[in-house]
Amino acid sequence: MKPLSGFRDLLPPDFARRHYITTQWRDVARRYGFVEFDGPMLESAELYQKKNSGGEILTQLYQFTDRGERVLALRPEMTPTLARMVAAHHRSFSKPLRWFNIGSSFRYERQQRGRWREFTQWNCDLLGEQSVAADAEIIGLLIDALRSFGLGPNDVVIRLSDRLAWQEFLQKHHVPFERMGEFLGIIDKMEREPREKTEEKLAAFDGLSFELLQEFLASPEVPILAPLLEELSARGLRDYVRPDLSIVRGLAYYTGIVFEAFALHGGLRAVAGGGRYDQLIEHLSDGAVSLPAVGFGMGDAVLLELLQLVPQAAKQEQSWMERHHPCDIYLVIAAQEHRPMAMAVAQQLRHEGWGVLFSLTPERVGKQFSAAEQTKARFAVVVGEEWPQVKVKNLSTREEVILPQEELNNWLNLKT
Amino acid sequence: MKPLSGFRDLLPPDFARRHYITTQWRDVARRYGFVEFDGPMLESAELYQKKNSGGEILTQLYQFTDRGERVLALRPEMTPTLARMVAAHHRSFSKPLRWFNIGSSFRYERQQRGRWREFTQWNCDLLGEQSVAADAEIIGLLIDALRSFGLGPNDVVIRLSDRLAWQEFLQKHHVPFERMGEFLGIIDKMEREPREKTEEKLAAFDGLSFELLQEFLASPEVPILAPLLEELSARGLRDYVRPDLSIVRGLAYYTGIVFEAFALHGGLRAVAGGGRYDQLIEHLSDGAVSLPAVGFGMGDAVLLELLQLVPQAAKQEQSWMERHHPCDIYLVIAAQEHRPMAMAVAQQLRHEGWGVLFSLTPERVGKQFSAAEQTKARFAVVVGEEWPQVKVKNLSTREEVILPQEELNNWLNLKT
Repeated sequence: MKPLSGFRDLLPPDFARRHYITTQWRDVARRYGFVEFDGPMLESAELYQKKNSGGEILTQLYQFTDRGERVLALRPEMTPTLARMVAAHHRSFSKPLRWFNIGSSFRYERQQRGRWREFTQWNCDLLGEQSVAADAEIIGLLIDALRSFGLGPNDVVIRLSDRLAWQEFLQKHHVPFERMGEFLGIIDKMEREPREKTEEKLAAFDGLSFELLQEFLASPEVPILAPLLEELSARGLRDYVRPDLSIVRGLAYYTGIVFEAFALHGGLRAVAGGGRYDQLIEHLSDGAVSLPAVGFGMGDAVLLELLQLVPQAAKQEQSWMERHHPCDIYLVIAAQEHRPMAMAVAQQLRHEGWGVLFSLTPERVGKQFSAAEQTKARFAVVVGEEWPQVKVKNLSTREEVILPQEELNNWLNLKT
Repeated sequence: MKPLSGFRDLLPPDFARRHYITTQWRDVARRYGFVEFDGPMLESAELYQKKNSGGEILTQLYQFTDRGERVLALRPEMTPTLARMVAAHHRSFSKPLRWFNIGSSFRYERQQRGRWREFTQWNCDLLGEQSVAADAEIIGLLIDALRSFGLGPNDVVIRLSDRLAWQEFLQKHHVPFERMGEFLGIIDKMEREPREKTEEKLAAFDGLSFELLQEFLASPEVPILAPLLEELSARGLRDYVRPDLSIVRGLAYYTGIVFEAFALHGGLRAVAGGGRYDQLIEHLSDGAVSLPAVGFGMGDAVLLELLQLVPQAAKQEQSWMERHHPCDIYLVIAAQEHRPMAMAVAQQLRHEGWGVLFSLTPERVGKQFSAAEQTKARFAVVVGEEWPQVKVKNLSTREEVILPQEELNNWLNLKT
């Protein structure tokens, strides 16, 4: 009777919370002129191999062979699908593309708090523009999304970095470019591992030491990030961002800025992450299409937990829930003989856009009124001996009127 | 660069069409007091075996073994997941339950027009109520959904049947109840197979003949459906429904009424189908929970094709699309020195809920105006030498005004 381990059943109250999140996501994306796309949950496993996703993800693939002997994978992330679609179809659209998607991805992960094997993610990507203005637009979108939930700079922080800064660092210390991936893997894990472990790995790099890394990480200024920070200042969003070179991201394909949004309550956990990946599309298309790109993904799980921890955010969510309950009107059917009239009224009101419920089986009037209260309907409409007039009761003010049923819609529109 | 065979890439214009459909689905579900839930895409393969889904679906499962040696399947339909969830959690909710879901299911099918290996389906189920009023509510919801797309009784028909009528028929002809499934399989295929094939299969049933079936199918009245048809008449929906005993549905779990909605244009193809399944939950829970249930599923693929074939429906879709384009305002930045002011204006307008676009790189003013036209923005706002005033141009009426930027939001609200 349970879902598979690592998977979620979203009962209606759980779904309502996720729907709140996806509604905000869609709305902020619209304000930034982003349009939604979708792609398959299943892809050829090859799409994630080679230099594409890379890293840990390859060990977490849900991969299998279908009846046609194709090696398939449930998508572990959306970016390779996006890159594949854009490489094939970009000529049909003017640049830059501003595309987003909301959907499931799948990873066979060790189970832990806020991590699921199927997770919902919002992905926003801006493609075909390599200037810092595109980076600012993407980070602005991310910040405005967080703000739309009632989260402020004391609740979340965007730790911002640039892989090019590390590239310069390695150049300066004569580490060959081919070892960049291996080196970034060390930085990526550094925060979560004991110092000894990091030192052990660094031993493979001549001329690098833990102290050298510490010193570089502590640099008060990151010159390469200055133009981006200036753009964010002009937008009034500077407070949300903290330059932090320790962020490098696990995925193989990033080429420039990388960033993660962290919750400042309930443990420093990542709510979102992304960066610039200027070569992925070129790589996927074997050089046929070259489009710079920058984007991020935000999951629902950590965000849902965070909203509960921030009073302003929890209050805003609660108020949204109250405005979005499914029943406006509960029809009370006085006696069975009135049922056909009640059905016609239900049909009409629903046609006019009202959410209408009624008892499917004969019930005492008192019990129908209790059901009306329970559904949190705003009005009860009684179809009974007054027909073709009906009695309307406002269930919060207790106000009652009797009016011809044809006037119901107008009256309700005036009262709501 | 292509998706796997049988899978779809939804580019933004394709997604917009699907979003139109899912928006209508959600709206009509709300009017009927249905609440949304969601469940995993992956389930234990066992959930679909035994008597649960049964039939053809089992030969179309995407099934594989994960690293934990579990036999998994991508869900081929939503009902078993729903039944599993309801069996586990029904005590937390008052009955009847009115639940719906919009999501993907997966079948390894032979490819043909309007059939995909991953398809989007809207599932609506009413659980915990066995009266005909529940059947009427579900069919009413289905019809109102079709109507919401601008489809009338000349565009779609609900062919309505009841497996109990066939049960009586078999009893009368002394066919044992255990052979019901096998027999219904013959009826299910009868419409699409040559008469000889059906006769061949019927040979295994003593006392049954093709003529006997034809005669029963031609019965002018189906008494068991009368109360349901009466309920639908009271709702004014009778025109959409045609009793037709040849509809039996392929799934093993149906126990009472079954129905399919067919498109009357472009070949008689099923848009939706469903029925009553009063024993599935009991069966899944090994007898622990018994809840009667009735529901239907509607896919997006045939519906999308049908909407193109019905002028009224196509017009309605077009008009929805025009109201839901992503850009309200295009910001024209007169010179680079005005860019920081423009960023502040963009941030403010987006915060106020407007969809705002602007060029990320320096462009001539003329080219920015062309881009504004191309995005179908309603207004262009020029940030330039008038600062802190801005020039606003209504791009359809060509009307222009100059006003202080703080007054922009109020002015735009008055004009839209």
